[in-house]
Amino acid sequence: MSDHREPPAMPVQAFEPPYYLAVFTAVRTADQDGYRETNARLEDSVRSIPGYLGMDYAQSPAGLAITVAYFRDAEALDRWRTDLEHRAAQRRGRAQWYRSYSLHVAKVERSHGFTREG
Amino acid sequence: MSDHREPPAMPVQAFEPPYYLAVFTAVRTADQDGYRETNARLEDSVRSIPGYLGMDYAQSPAGLAITVAYFRDAEALDRWRTDLEHRAAQRRGRAQWYRSYSLHVAKVERSHGFTREG
Repeated sequence: MSDHREPPAMPVQAFEPPYYLAVFTAVRTADQDGYRETNARLEDSVRSIPGYLGMDYAQSPAGLAITVAYFRDAEALDRWRTDLEHRAAQRRGRAQWYRSYSLHVAKVERSHGFTREG
Repeated sequence: MSDHREPPAMPVQAFEPPYYLAVFTAVRTADQDGYRETNARLEDSVRSIPGYLGMDYAQSPAGLAITVAYFRDAEALDRWRTDLEHRAAQRRGRAQWYRSYSLHVAKVERSHGFTREG
């Protein structure tokens, strides 16, 4: 189902606020030509950005895909937003891959994590 | 796969900032007794909160579940955070349903939406 590399089944941790996150929610079209390759390149690219903290990804059976990317500060997120290959992928996404999407860029004010013992 | 009512395959829209969101990412345990019923009640409950804007949900094949809930303001989100049944479910979640989770509460500063024409 996932076109992403299978992520480890662990959520990205809660960091010390403030930090930033971008929630990208999308429903894709039937034409996914080139999506997988572009996505793999972009995943490598975002990892190289100083201040990139991690990414959560999941897709529902009905086809809703949620990506949450975490960044240490607004500068790191802005560097990702304005990355040239990312911008080209955004244009191609609107032209070809996405039926509908929403982007929410937000500053984390509070966070909390839990991991079961043992 | 989903224990949630099957959502329509449309992302929650981008609203006019500022607004709030809570990203809840979780990996569940093998013991999901009572989870589905509690979750259905909580979904009804959150919808009754003034200022609740919507919720996106997806789960990866590897078992990472992402829920993003959107609220008009900090007061609406706080009302959800302190809801008594929600708090009881949080305690039961730590005791029984969740292996690991992260919660990120954030104020949206920028948003953008796209829907294909025709």
